[in-house]
Amino acid sequence: MSQQLVLLTPDEQKLRRTKLLEAMQAAEVDAVLLASVTNLFYLTGRVFAGYILLLADGRLRYYVKRPVELADDALTYIRKPEDIPATVGTPIHTLGVELDALSYNSAVRLLKLFPQARQANASALLQQVRSVKTPGEIEMIRYCAERHDFVYSQIPKLYREGMTDIEFQIEIEGVMRREGCLGQLRASGEGMEIHMGSLIAGNNADAPSPYDFSMGGAGLDPSLPVGASGEIIHLHEAVMVDMNGDFNGYMSDMSRTFAVGTLSDLARRAHDVSIGICRMAERECLPGYPLKELYDRALKMVEDEGLTQYYMGHRQHAAFIGHGVGIEINEQPVVTARSKAVFVEGNVIALEPKFVIPGVGAVGIENTYLATSTGLTSFNHAPEEIIQLFE
Amino acid sequence: MSQQLVLLTPDEQKLRRTKLLEAMQAAEVDAVLLASVTNLFYLTGRVFAGYILLLADGRLRYYVKRPVELADDALTYIRKPEDIPATVGTPIHTLGVELDALSYNSAVRLLKLFPQARQANASALLQQVRSVKTPGEIEMIRYCAERHDFVYSQIPKLYREGMTDIEFQIEIEGVMRREGCLGQLRASGEGMEIHMGSLIAGNNADAPSPYDFSMGGAGLDPSLPVGASGEIIHLHEAVMVDMNGDFNGYMSDMSRTFAVGTLSDLARRAHDVSIGICRMAERECLPGYPLKELYDRALKMVEDEGLTQYYMGHRQHAAFIGHGVGIEINEQPVVTARSKAVFVEGNVIALEPKFVIPGVGAVGIENTYLATSTGLTSFNHAPEEIIQLFE
Repeated sequence: MSQQLVLLTPDEQKLRRTKLLEAMQAAEVDAVLLASVTNLFYLTGRVFAGYILLLADGRLRYYVKRPVELADDALTYIRKPEDIPATVGTPIHTLGVELDALSYNSAVRLLKLFPQARQANASALLQQVRSVKTPGEIEMIRYCAERHDFVYSQIPKLYREGMTDIEFQIEIEGVMRREGCLGQLRASGEGMEIHMGSLIAGNNADAPSPYDFSMGGAGLDPSLPVGASGEIIHLHEAVMVDMNGDFNGYMSDMSRTFAVGTLSDLARRAHDVSIGICRMAERECLPGYPLKELYDRALKMVEDEGLTQYYMGHRQHAAFIGHGVGIEINEQPVVTARSKAVFVEGNVIALEPKFVIPGVGAVGIENTYLATSTGLTSFNHAPEEIIQLFE
Repeated sequence: MSQQLVLLTPDEQKLRRTKLLEAMQAAEVDAVLLASVTNLFYLTGRVFAGYILLLADGRLRYYVKRPVELADDALTYIRKPEDIPATVGTPIHTLGVELDALSYNSAVRLLKLFPQARQANASALLQQVRSVKTPGEIEMIRYCAERHDFVYSQIPKLYREGMTDIEFQIEIEGVMRREGCLGQLRASGEGMEIHMGSLIAGNNADAPSPYDFSMGGAGLDPSLPVGASGEIIHLHEAVMVDMNGDFNGYMSDMSRTFAVGTLSDLARRAHDVSIGICRMAERECLPGYPLKELYDRALKMVEDEGLTQYYMGHRQHAAFIGHGVGIEINEQPVVTARSKAVFVEGNVIALEPKFVIPGVGAVGIENTYLATSTGLTSFNHAPEEIIQLFE
């Protein structure tokens, strides 16, 4: 790699391991055997071909199928996971395997290694642990947000009259890639597909999509029905840019609204409400504040403005207005009407109260926030007003 | 969508369904309940949020969670999979669920819908069915290969002296996207990650990677250690371009070797052996020819030239020289030393006998082939010789 290898410091590695051990102890899980790219990366700072076994007493082993630079004293080369059990000296009573991330057959194969162990869901444990970011993770996200802000500052220069939405998006993709975006938008759950993010213009914002993203869009092809649809961007249409900022295995998630000419009063009012919701959230979401409260209070602001029918979609409405962000685009916690979580210092959430205005498009903003003792602090600093693409 | 919706003709839809029904009958599976993006797309020509239930007697139902255009008489809107069983009139004795594609928890949720049913692996069934392409699929792949060929014809124009590998790749990505590449490189199995394909130059070809692709590369970041590494491309280095041609939910897989200045005799000789292996395969791989034979015979050609140590990698060697291609980049059949399959008319395989020459880089070619009654016919027609990036 051309850059200095940005791997975990020993302190970071220890901190992440300690957080997981605490969660294991609370859940009475005495071993986790991890295999997903995201969780291997979380605990080591790199992706490798193999497994991590962490025992509740703190012992950790890397079981590796292909050469990799990892601490030698914890490393065992194996050909297949069936080589693991013979190396483990202690009985395992409850084994955590990533039941949400691994395929049924892969998970069963790992569970069978320790047939006497009760099974636990390591995906849920890791989701919980990863929902509160470490200082090292916060720095990774800050780096992404800086790059992301810069890319967005270049967007107005990329627009040319008569462009289609996808032509505009491809120009933005080029800038992102040249700034170091890795283009690997990781998401948990099946079938969360999208190429580098979404740019939706005009009425395409109102096209329903099968994916569980906040906004839809018809897409270019029935094999990937989401996002830009290939339509020319017209005067008085809004262009919602929600491209993903993954620059180092972490990401910042940010949306901004661009416009060709002026937008309708309704659209501009809705955009201002979106900004207002973010300002409210920044102030109110102190540690202990329920995510459900944030959802309800935002909805009340929307209702007070008579904008409910446009909120989080028009023909189809998303059920969340915010979500955790980190290694994956859809981490915990999630801001919905039924959230049970409260804000905890170190949560990182993307808040995206958006509106779809028929005939105009999608408006509103999205910032990625760090939950602190004094409220939410945005990682993103790109201007929030509707940005003119030309006079 | 701006283009005409390219969905399945009724004949195509019926053919695919019939092929699956035959496989179900042979495996004594009396129902499959499918949920993966790839298999929903295979049977309908589009991605939607929901499930397909196909009974061995031919009855089919779409269970859909979000609005979609599908044949009304077969469509039931549901909120959750638990709504499905009440709508099924017949007992199910053996239920196929996608045990390789769905997460453990998702698969278990579906299996629990019919607790009395014996479980079968629908992933394996569909892999088998999809390994023999229909006329409609062959046309989709042909379309991709034509776009792909055109993109590769533009590559020499994109190179500028002093470029890094990733700068060169980003230029190619832009052309691909502008030609309609969807950028969604679907692969089965966990953790097969890559952004739009791979471009590896010089000694980066010799950097091992944790992913199960034919070639490695250090990548830009330890979170995605594969492909271009950000190094400047030097004189007398080979540049292996293996960008993925997914333009319509299907793909063509093609690699070509580019060079800055002349390459060593060894590298040029290895490249010619790669072409020679493809010529041999085109001629020999008639229906019934064992894939293992192809693997062995190719290896013999390599050994006869004394090139074994460079074949399919140098520090790390891939165990396959070809693989099925279609909706996913790694379909059946696979060309390895242990393949049990024989060629069947309608197989589509990418054959990629490549070499990594220390100090030079990766050389060789890859074409996507259709297995016909007279041998393998390439979908790709880009020139196969080493292509000079400048004089």
